[in-house]
Amino acid sequence: MPILDKDMTLCISLSGRPSNIGTRFHNYLYDALGLAYVYKAFTTTDLASAIAGVRGLGIRGCAVSMPFKEAVIPLVDELDPSAAVIESVNTIVNDDGFLRAYNTDYLAIVRLVERHGIARGSVIVRGSGGMAKAVTAALHDSGFVAGTIIARNESAGRALAARHGYAWQRELGESTADLLVNVTPIGMAGGADAGGLAFPTPAIAAASTVWDVVAMPVETPLVRAARAAGKPVVTGGEVIAIQAEEQFVLYTGVRPSRELVAAASEFSRAG
Amino acid sequence: MPILDKDMTLCISLSGRPSNIGTRFHNYLYDALGLAYVYKAFTTTDLASAIAGVRGLGIRGCAVSMPFKEAVIPLVDELDPSAAVIESVNTIVNDDGFLRAYNTDYLAIVRLVERHGIARGSVIVRGSGGMAKAVTAALHDSGFVAGTIIARNESAGRALAARHGYAWQRELGESTADLLVNVTPIGMAGGADAGGLAFPTPAIAAASTVWDVVAMPVETPLVRAARAAGKPVVTGGEVIAIQAEEQFVLYTGVRPSRELVAAASEFSRAG
Repeated sequence: MPILDKDMTLCISLSGRPSNIGTRFHNYLYDALGLAYVYKAFTTTDLASAIAGVRGLGIRGCAVSMPFKEAVIPLVDELDPSAAVIESVNTIVNDDGFLRAYNTDYLAIVRLVERHGIARGSVIVRGSGGMAKAVTAALHDSGFVAGTIIARNESAGRALAARHGYAWQRELGESTADLLVNVTPIGMAGGADAGGLAFPTPAIAAASTVWDVVAMPVETPLVRAARAAGKPVVTGGEVIAIQAEEQFVLYTGVRPSRELVAAASEFSRAG
Repeated sequence: MPILDKDMTLCISLSGRPSNIGTRFHNYLYDALGLAYVYKAFTTTDLASAIAGVRGLGIRGCAVSMPFKEAVIPLVDELDPSAAVIESVNTIVNDDGFLRAYNTDYLAIVRLVERHGIARGSVIVRGSGGMAKAVTAALHDSGFVAGTIIARNESAGRALAARHGYAWQRELGESTADLLVNVTPIGMAGGADAGGLAFPTPAIAAASTVWDVVAMPVETPLVRAARAAGKPVVTGGEVIAIQAEEQFVLYTGVRPSRELVAAASEFSRAG
């Protein structure tokens, strides 16, 4: 039977290749919390018209994925600092036609540092892509003032490091730090290096906390090695769930319980 | 549980005051026919942006109601004759970004004349508003060449009559015709003249067929009086159902059975 009432609030996503993950995550929570919202994924070949539609149709929220995260910036009315600091948007909130853009990847990193109570020691971030920019900025802004970027791409790695006063190295070598963060595809299912270990065992042994941003699978080789070494771990599954939770809160004003977020996250990945 | 898959096709409505009737009608049929479509009603304060959104988000169909039926004309790419002849749009079909606009009220009148096999005799149309324009044009184009418009609004009545070679009268007086059609709010629930009879008993007695476009209720005083006089009747409920059916066919390419349309129509009005 139809569930769509005229008064229900629509939230959407825009991406080059829509998945069902966000749709399932948000609709699961709307249903569990009895909210009169509905969520649907879209793609577009005309981003400006799609964003006009967000305004014109009163669509409350719009998640933004590749390849639209930078292109959408001139189409919104205001950038939240979370998006401005990395010049990348993944979330738009529509208040009566005024579009404010956020980056909830950045917000998720900040929240996870707090939630896990990670001590602000030295940090090594491996990677220099879009997500590495969000992670590095959020870590720096959370108080990690001494860091190193490991990246094969010298220009991107140097630029990212310079922006936050971090060092850059092409290879990890013998370096160690209190917090190790992988923001490369190493260990990602279906990737070129699905079985790879993003940090070697000695670096893991020397670290206090290991963080992998790869979420598919949640139990990457790095996460498994860190657990085996008895280290506290933060997983990519947590990053995805928290960034989606932050979107949910921005759209609805409701913060779901941690248990409900976990259930919605599991449901979203089972679809 | 969430029903919205990323690959589902969205159809919408745009009106000043959205109702659930279209939402319930279309979603009922999508569900009954197992179509991967979903329908939702919207309003807007920025029609151009809303129509841009229809293009940019790949929304397949868009029903258009008051007060947007004329204003939307410059925003579409092509007018079907059904919309061009009365300069009023109630349906937009989006083929890969190309927007073609129709008026399914007009199409419904044409189809109902055929379905009821109404002889092309003389006709009296009472009313001169937007719906009366659609009805009169459709009747004229269906072969009713001799007609009279009854309308208190002299300029609108004269203009409508002149467009189709019909006569105009301010009051019905003693006039009679083979087909009587009410396109005023007389007999409409909640209106100023809910108990009123749109045509007097002698005119009903002289007619061959009586047609009321008022749909709320379906059994208006005029419909009841015509049935009591043993006259064939066409109701406003049929008009609404057929115009919605024509929209459904334009959006999906599927023509539902008459029984299914009747069930969807009943369901839509029960909500």
